[in-house]
Amino acid sequence: MSNRKIKIAVDAMGGDFAPRAVVEGSVQACRDLGAEIILVGKEQAIHVVRKKKDSSIRVGIELVLENKADAFVSAGNSGAVASGALFVLNRIKGIDRPAIATILPALKNRVILLDAGANNSCKPYHLAQFAVMGSVYSKYHLSCASPRIAVLSNGEEESKGTDITREAHALLRKSKLNYIGYIEGKDVFKGAADIVVCDGFTGNVLLKAAEGVAECLGKTLQEEMSSSLWSKIGYLFSRTAFTNFKKRFDYAQYGGALLLGVRGPVIISHGRSTAEAMKNAVKMAAQCVEQKVVYHLANDLEVSQDFATFAKKPSLFDKLFKSDSGLKRPEPEQ
Amino acid sequence: MSNRKIKIAVDAMGGDFAPRAVVEGSVQACRDLGAEIILVGKEQAIHVVRKKKDSSIRVGIELVLENKADAFVSAGNSGAVASGALFVLNRIKGIDRPAIATILPALKNRVILLDAGANNSCKPYHLAQFAVMGSVYSKYHLSCASPRIAVLSNGEEESKGTDITREAHALLRKSKLNYIGYIEGKDVFKGAADIVVCDGFTGNVLLKAAEGVAECLGKTLQEEMSSSLWSKIGYLFSRTAFTNFKKRFDYAQYGGALLLGVRGPVIISHGRSTAEAMKNAVKMAAQCVEQKVVYHLANDLEVSQDFATFAKKPSLFDKLFKSDSGLKRPEPEQ
Repeated sequence: MSNRKIKIAVDAMGGDFAPRAVVEGSVQACRDLGAEIILVGKEQAIHVVRKKKDSSIRVGIELVLENKADAFVSAGNSGAVASGALFVLNRIKGIDRPAIATILPALKNRVILLDAGANNSCKPYHLAQFAVMGSVYSKYHLSCASPRIAVLSNGEEESKGTDITREAHALLRKSKLNYIGYIEGKDVFKGAADIVVCDGFTGNVLLKAAEGVAECLGKTLQEEMSSSLWSKIGYLFSRTAFTNFKKRFDYAQYGGALLLGVRGPVIISHGRSTAEAMKNAVKMAAQCVEQKVVYHLANDLEVSQDFATFAKKPSLFDKLFKSDSGLKRPEPEQ
Repeated sequence: MSNRKIKIAVDAMGGDFAPRAVVEGSVQACRDLGAEIILVGKEQAIHVVRKKKDSSIRVGIELVLENKADAFVSAGNSGAVASGALFVLNRIKGIDRPAIATILPALKNRVILLDAGANNSCKPYHLAQFAVMGSVYSKYHLSCASPRIAVLSNGEEESKGTDITREAHALLRKSKLNYIGYIEGKDVFKGAADIVVCDGFTGNVLLKAAEGVAECLGKTLQEEMSSSLWSKIGYLFSRTAFTNFKKRFDYAQYGGALLLGVRGPVIISHGRSTAEAMKNAVKMAAQCVEQKVVYHLANDLEVSQDFATFAKKPSLFDKLFKSDSGLKRPEPEQ
């Protein structure tokens, strides 16, 4: 890494607790990292009210395009950030749809889930492209040399899934990636795969359900722990254990989600980002810059293209004459 | 309720722990309820091995058709049970696709989620029919007079969702049901709605993700609680609190899922059903028989049809000339 300071543009207007949480988190990240932070937003608005709330997104992404910033971080509307990034930075050749890649804590490892919400409906080759992008991200960001890739489905058997997951499954089976087949929602959190691909609608439902269950369980546990004198005493003894437990599943520890597929590092953080979450999102952005994730992705896809040919968008010719994916539609079970 | 004993047919061959767990659970339910249980399966197989494993499903459902049993319970392959029930018992008029209705524990209430896995892809009017079935089920099984119905989506705003959820949303908005709009995965577990409708693929992903997160959190908590002497002492003090906590989220307490839309009560229980889970599934079947859930559903749909006309399958005429659902496709956010 060169001695030049990393510069991160941060959307001061995005998120439920903006601009306060953003400014606080950025200052902390600045101190910890020694990176340079460019806060983007209306100067007076940072102190008063938010107007034209998405314009800061555009400005921040343009800073990346003009090389005035190395990365952009926003807790604003994820759809607006994704489409803004696509419009301003353009896509990496070989990728038809950028995807939001979220890192989830699982029992044994960290799991990259994509797409977490950029594309509501996807074609099979989109899912295959997500797998390619996820594997590069996993390699450079999580140092996972040969990440296990799975397609999210409603069962492990090949006969499960939708027409789209079945075709994606057939494409991935033919690839050189470490593809392990379908994965169920349950096994995602056991860490049965390193990368889980799905359309953005399903990914979003899965992520938010996980968040909801964790919140619901946490509240119920709290209720039970304060239900009697004994349990209250017990809580005092095991307070450290509870604090560690909470920390392991606190989304604020996991920074943000990288938007994969655009020509520059853009990090989307949770709409409810606290200062702590913003700090970690900025740190993650700095890491992605150091690890040159976007550069490697573009390089792998555009220079040594052959590893992603299986995921190419089919031409009209392919569609007309090669539509057989080699998988039969399953007969209804009986 | 008449004095006649309720008769429940139970699939002795279905589930990972069959036949042992099934037999044990059935015996317990029999004792607690005073109901009559008919175990279905090969007599010798109940003690030895399982062969032709789905034939017990067919036999059990036929007992319901012939009025030799009031309900059927199986922990076997849910697809096989659903298609078997549809084939043997037939559908209720006005319903195009039966759906698996699961009851989830949420913070404030119990939530009915459907479809939990019978239909991988759905049309908008299927989702609307699920809402109709769910509301009748909620009324008679959970005594919820005017259940709040929501469509599962990736955000609350109308512009979110897929083409299918948006059309279902438009149909439900026109209905007389207590429709409250879109719901996010997160809010399902807060109990923001009483009924959540979605396609079976998404429903299955949500359910299994919830199961996986609960398991992962449970294991991590256990790890943390046994990480130091203090936390171990704390655990001893608060053991009752932990036991109660576990019980509140144990799927075994929630019996099975009712298959809604076929002309007879069929309960699908978890493939990993223990004896306790089987007992509760049988109890739930007996409740559904007493509450006449299926009778009421058929009656409401077939006699006073008007409340479900909005959910009718569109005719070719409708498709050609009335395709405008009144909802505009959202512009991409920018």
